[in-house]
Amino acid sequence: MSLKEYEASFLAYVKKILNMQEAISVLYWDLRTGAPKNAVRQRSNVISQLSSDVFKMSTSKEMEHYLITLEEAIQAGKCTLEVEKTVEFLRREFDHNTKIPVEEYEAYVKCQAESESVWAEAKTENNFSKFEPYLTEIIEYKRKFVEYLGYGDSKYDTYLKQYEPGMSVAKLDEVFAAVREKLVPIVKAISNSGKNFEREEMKANVSKQKQREICEDFLTTLGYDFNSGRLDETSHPFATNINLGDVRVTTKYHEDYFAKALFSTIHECGHALYEQNISKSLEGLPIAQGASLGIHESQSLLYEKMIGQSFEFWKGNYSKLTKQLNGVLDDVSLEDFYKAINHSKPSYIRIEADELTYPLHIMLRYEIEKDLLDGLIQVKDLPAIWNKKMEEYLGIIPPTNREGVLQDVHWSMGLFGYFPTYALGAMYAAQIKATMEKDLTNVNELIESNDFHSILNWLKINIHQYGATKTPQELLKDVTGEELNVQFYIEYLENKYAKLYELSFSEQNMGSEA
Amino acid sequence: MSLKEYEASFLAYVKKILNMQEAISVLYWDLRTGAPKNAVRQRSNVISQLSSDVFKMSTSKEMEHYLITLEEAIQAGKCTLEVEKTVEFLRREFDHNTKIPVEEYEAYVKCQAESESVWAEAKTENNFSKFEPYLTEIIEYKRKFVEYLGYGDSKYDTYLKQYEPGMSVAKLDEVFAAVREKLVPIVKAISNSGKNFEREEMKANVSKQKQREICEDFLTTLGYDFNSGRLDETSHPFATNINLGDVRVTTKYHEDYFAKALFSTIHECGHALYEQNISKSLEGLPIAQGASLGIHESQSLLYEKMIGQSFEFWKGNYSKLTKQLNGVLDDVSLEDFYKAINHSKPSYIRIEADELTYPLHIMLRYEIEKDLLDGLIQVKDLPAIWNKKMEEYLGIIPPTNREGVLQDVHWSMGLFGYFPTYALGAMYAAQIKATMEKDLTNVNELIESNDFHSILNWLKINIHQYGATKTPQELLKDVTGEELNVQFYIEYLENKYAKLYELSFSEQNMGSEA
Repeated sequence: MSLKEYEASFLAYVKKILNMQEAISVLYWDLRTGAPKNAVRQRSNVISQLSSDVFKMSTSKEMEHYLITLEEAIQAGKCTLEVEKTVEFLRREFDHNTKIPVEEYEAYVKCQAESESVWAEAKTENNFSKFEPYLTEIIEYKRKFVEYLGYGDSKYDTYLKQYEPGMSVAKLDEVFAAVREKLVPIVKAISNSGKNFEREEMKANVSKQKQREICEDFLTTLGYDFNSGRLDETSHPFATNINLGDVRVTTKYHEDYFAKALFSTIHECGHALYEQNISKSLEGLPIAQGASLGIHESQSLLYEKMIGQSFEFWKGNYSKLTKQLNGVLDDVSLEDFYKAINHSKPSYIRIEADELTYPLHIMLRYEIEKDLLDGLIQVKDLPAIWNKKMEEYLGIIPPTNREGVLQDVHWSMGLFGYFPTYALGAMYAAQIKATMEKDLTNVNELIESNDFHSILNWLKINIHQYGATKTPQELLKDVTGEELNVQFYIEYLENKYAKLYELSFSEQNMGSEA
Repeated sequence: MSLKEYEASFLAYVKKILNMQEAISVLYWDLRTGAPKNAVRQRSNVISQLSSDVFKMSTSKEMEHYLITLEEAIQAGKCTLEVEKTVEFLRREFDHNTKIPVEEYEAYVKCQAESESVWAEAKTENNFSKFEPYLTEIIEYKRKFVEYLGYGDSKYDTYLKQYEPGMSVAKLDEVFAAVREKLVPIVKAISNSGKNFEREEMKANVSKQKQREICEDFLTTLGYDFNSGRLDETSHPFATNINLGDVRVTTKYHEDYFAKALFSTIHECGHALYEQNISKSLEGLPIAQGASLGIHESQSLLYEKMIGQSFEFWKGNYSKLTKQLNGVLDDVSLEDFYKAINHSKPSYIRIEADELTYPLHIMLRYEIEKDLLDGLIQVKDLPAIWNKKMEEYLGIIPPTNREGVLQDVHWSMGLFGYFPTYALGAMYAAQIKATMEKDLTNVNELIESNDFHSILNWLKINIHQYGATKTPQELLKDVTGEELNVQFYIEYLENKYAKLYELSFSEQNMGSEA
């Protein structure tokens, strides 16, 4: 068989896996957007069968043979970039999935499943000790598995890189410290200012149907292609790349808080625009997806926070929105609306946190995860550790564990190394937006005039089209000329919130509080 | 391995096939209820891959071994009824799929696919000769394949039995002749009466949202379980049994003819009630579906025509409907509404035909199919044959082939033996309803008082629960005490339309015209 034929056979094999993954994606989407209650039990069998087939094909002897043979051909410079990147991608997956002994992994999956449902009960009952033994077991698995998987400077790196290739504890420690040093005093200063931007009008009743129309309208404005996607209702909003011509958005309508649905939709729109604009030449390859969770989040946060919650955006859209809402906002000026949607206040729950306080929630989790993996802290001490860090970073202590250490599902599912990608997304976004401003010169004017075509086009050319052919750091360097530089993010937050709260956060003023 | 273990291994194998079929069903449902335009091309690859996997597993050596071994055990009386019926079911499929040489079948599938798109063009262009060579080739394949598949008295039987096990040309010839003899003069008498029950009000504009609410309401009234299903919009309405806890209904809203959507929804509701009420003990077996297409259609027609278009039904529901429609029907009395929805008039297009003229459309197709398979007529002569039969049965001649021989997609897809099941459904339904009336004594009162629980329960106990564990004729005999007896259907139509048109269709009056 010639190399060309061998490559074709490899790509056909890969395509088969992707086709099954596409079926799984539709099944998940369906389950989460209105599959009837009684469908669920049997549907899980279907998903688990197809997932198991995908796992078998991705870790088969056949796959191993393809990888070894093609790695040699790549070394010899004989393969296309697409094949090279596909092989790299599948190799990472193959190694991860074959280094851990199958029986141990199966026992872990079982523990994980139990743990998730025990967590849900423990959260409802506000009973940390119920969850404690399960989380302890999960951590034990994680600590054992990292030995199989191997690690360099830090055990945490191994898990972090699964979601954010190329990222390291060393780098995270550095950027998080820089951000925290600036942010903690800013959050304090805002709290001390006593300013409250909230408006009762934001809680007006708006029908689901009306919210749906508004969300569809804003999706269209931002460039979301309804010929390659659709909008549906769900309980935990997500975007899903089913195939490159089918990237769906979901949202949750809050009849007593329309803005939540709108910004959540814009967030998912950012994810979806990324996937809708991946180069069609990557179709049928596993690299036809975002470069990493962090880069993905940079696109959703760029659209949600930096565009959707900017003053310019509402200068261009507020009069339309007030019309769409039939009087609900008639007594709220553009300026007050802008302030209301950006109101910042320390709060207990991460997913309800505002843009400014959000990264502090992430750092707290990151530090705990790292110490758990390194065996420096015990699960039983987590509530106390959690609350201490909350007080230190945000100046508040959760009244219950339900609003504290028990709030997130992630650890019960064994997701360690995942949280930092949320914060990285915002940092990447600020750095990317700074370059976009240099390139396009008039980004604020484009936003104000609803000219999102130019913005989307810039993102497409610089980021979206590449899918996962570049690592996050390669991508960032190619676009912005440097690797992650957290100063862009710090400046973005300082500027936005200084203006918003009419406070000055310069070194001199904050020094005494830092 | 013990027989018990062997059975378990067989059932696990079968379950794997059904799980893949469930995935395919969701993918189809998704494609037909709003998947974005650009999803379709790649989605077809997924469906075709999964279908091919299902085909391979259903015709594998492994399957053959299971069937042979279990057939012996069944002979020896060692298996449960469920296993026995499952083996019978899979054997029919296995034989059908393995008797035809693979290469010939693949060539046929290719011809079929081309034929379908050529048919669509030919229909649009009203150009029968464009379709002629393709249909000729399809018939040649069908005539050749029937030699591989084997046949008894009639070649047509082989194809008919695929959709309606136990049915035969001998029986169909008999019942169709009896129906035609009665029906043709009735249709003529109604035409000659000059009565027109149509009402302009039925064409009033009713929003999709409103129609959706009405359809949901009627589905609930009839006992459709939304915990095990959902209602969506599509272009060609269907019901689909994804799993026993997920039986979905789809409909098409006509903004200028609300009644069409309503009755189409009730039709699909009849199909869905059948599948929602199959015994849960059959879950995971291929026999957890309707007994045949004909029995399926009996349930949809019972609900749509015999209940939904009955006077009693509207006595119980008309005032609610007029309220739901906000004045649209204020000038239409209950009696006139009933007449309008049952207006009968010979027409060219089968899917738009009324209850009375519909079976004549089927007979015409049946006769042509049979003669084509037997080589008694040529494809090139079809337009003339079609028009001649239309004049004979319905007294009208289609002005174009588009409204005549080119109207249906079925033949282009190689579906021969399928059409009769539509007519059989109505005949079964009349016979089943007659028994239900004997058993429950007050069916009309139940309908009038919207007590559909008793009716559904009777159908569940007598028909639905059995799924495909009984053949259509076994089922009919167990329920009604006899095999198909077409007199029930003839009497039903005579009574309903005599009353409706205030005409008498007794032997004496009609004799001269028959």
